[in-house]
Amino acid sequence: MFELKNYIKQKSRAVNDTLAQMMQNYQPDETISKAMKYSLMAGGKRIRPVLCLAASEAVGGGLKDAMRAACALEMVHTYSLIHDDLPAMDNDELRRGKPTCHVAFGEATAILAGDALLTMAFEILASVPFENGDQAGKWLQVMQIIASAAGSRGMIQGQMLDIAAEGRLLDVTDLESMHRLKTGALIEASLQCGALLAEADMTQQKSLNRYARNIGLAFQVADDILNVEGNPALMGKAVGTDQLNEKNTYPSLLGLDASKQFARDLIRQALQALEAFDNKAEPLRALATYIIERNR
Amino acid sequence: MFELKNYIKQKSRAVNDTLAQMMQNYQPDETISKAMKYSLMAGGKRIRPVLCLAASEAVGGGLKDAMRAACALEMVHTYSLIHDDLPAMDNDELRRGKPTCHVAFGEATAILAGDALLTMAFEILASVPFENGDQAGKWLQVMQIIASAAGSRGMIQGQMLDIAAEGRLLDVTDLESMHRLKTGALIEASLQCGALLAEADMTQQKSLNRYARNIGLAFQVADDILNVEGNPALMGKAVGTDQLNEKNTYPSLLGLDASKQFARDLIRQALQALEAFDNKAEPLRALATYIIERNR
Repeated sequence: MFELKNYIKQKSRAVNDTLAQMMQNYQPDETISKAMKYSLMAGGKRIRPVLCLAASEAVGGGLKDAMRAACALEMVHTYSLIHDDLPAMDNDELRRGKPTCHVAFGEATAILAGDALLTMAFEILASVPFENGDQAGKWLQVMQIIASAAGSRGMIQGQMLDIAAEGRLLDVTDLESMHRLKTGALIEASLQCGALLAEADMTQQKSLNRYARNIGLAFQVADDILNVEGNPALMGKAVGTDQLNEKNTYPSLLGLDASKQFARDLIRQALQALEAFDNKAEPLRALATYIIERNR
Repeated sequence: MFELKNYIKQKSRAVNDTLAQMMQNYQPDETISKAMKYSLMAGGKRIRPVLCLAASEAVGGGLKDAMRAACALEMVHTYSLIHDDLPAMDNDELRRGKPTCHVAFGEATAILAGDALLTMAFEILASVPFENGDQAGKWLQVMQIIASAAGSRGMIQGQMLDIAAEGRLLDVTDLESMHRLKTGALIEASLQCGALLAEADMTQQKSLNRYARNIGLAFQVADDILNVEGNPALMGKAVGTDQLNEKNTYPSLLGLDASKQFARDLIRQALQALEAFDNKAEPLRALATYIIERNR
């Protein structure tokens, strides 16, 4: 029986160690680095890096290449959280049980720390040592996947749709489009990068994309459900805030039970997408279930 | 006699056309794209792209490769202006004679438009069509140069130093360190990218770096002088604001005459660095002089 808890623990520890090392090698004593590190090492779940590593593993790839991409993905994710939390955006003061970056360091530094993490992600990727031109080309592709997922046709467009939706009632289709961009795009990119670096063939890439699309959306549905019935102590943030802020969520549109059913359907489809994979895909299978059963 | 005015006109028109085309191919009808385009096409001087193109030309390189890097550099520069203008930073309402991005589109959209331009710069670079692995490796290097110059060891650190210097009297050494990062780093990167893509040899690269360091600083000294005695109608922004905001500037530390002398000395050193180059470096030579003689 595959032990997901240990797997996540081990992989996220390796990610944490690598991220800490990368920050340490950078310019550890500057205020900007402290702000970057504060948010980067704030105890995130490391879902995107772990998915990237697990995707690489599922097609028989090694840890090393995927780890670089995994860390870059986490930097991009963290930058997006720092900027989303800003007063001009969601104006959140608490994240993972700690004051948000702008509360701890001031707004100007938080904006710059976000900018710096986004930039560092690309610097880390661009400075990969490569042995031949094929590898260099593969890393250009990784950077294209991440930039495209993070940019104004991906995650940023999702955030724009989220802002535009404030105070407006969305239907399920619009809500899904928004989430597919806001959180789905980077989750899909995480799987794509892991697969690409492990030299997945076209069929494998397609299956992993289907898996990614389904768990990406399920992840958001689960987040919405946690905001209704999660435990604030475990989550490190308040619950019930979506309803208070009149946010469009799956529970508010479909009801709680139908939302849970929807999440389970998505996970079932994600698992179907992995049918042709052998037991090297066990981590991905277990992660799919974890995504809707997690408590934070 | 080399005609700089025509050269700048011709090159910046080519840059503008390419940038407009890149934006048009992207997702032209979304609000986020409108905000990005608003700032990107707001009539900037295109100094960085023109320097990148001129560096490529100086070592016998073509326009096409350098143009991609030139446009990415201008996107990075524009993102930094959008974020610098934000209320939490310099709180500027006017840029190039037009309302700043956050005044025109709101603060949340402006933050995201800056993020999106930074991300798009890397997407444009990563999606370069390459014919062989050597080329792919060269583009990775270009991305590393730009990310490193723009990041928290370069431009962003310069902005942090600028913020920290508010209300504090700097000496000339600190002022220089700040400017070498805040504006110098990306100007140096512009020359480096042009040189690298044109396959400059080590001696040429060193000379161009020396040129870049000198004009980068001269550019800032000239900016400070323009803020004292420039014509606001030509500049599209107010003058005298540095003194009003008690900013550390070269005129405030050295006086106006000594600042002008300093700028001339820097340009002389920049020209010396180009001594071994033939007449293909005429644009770079003329640009050096232009940098301290411009009126906007």
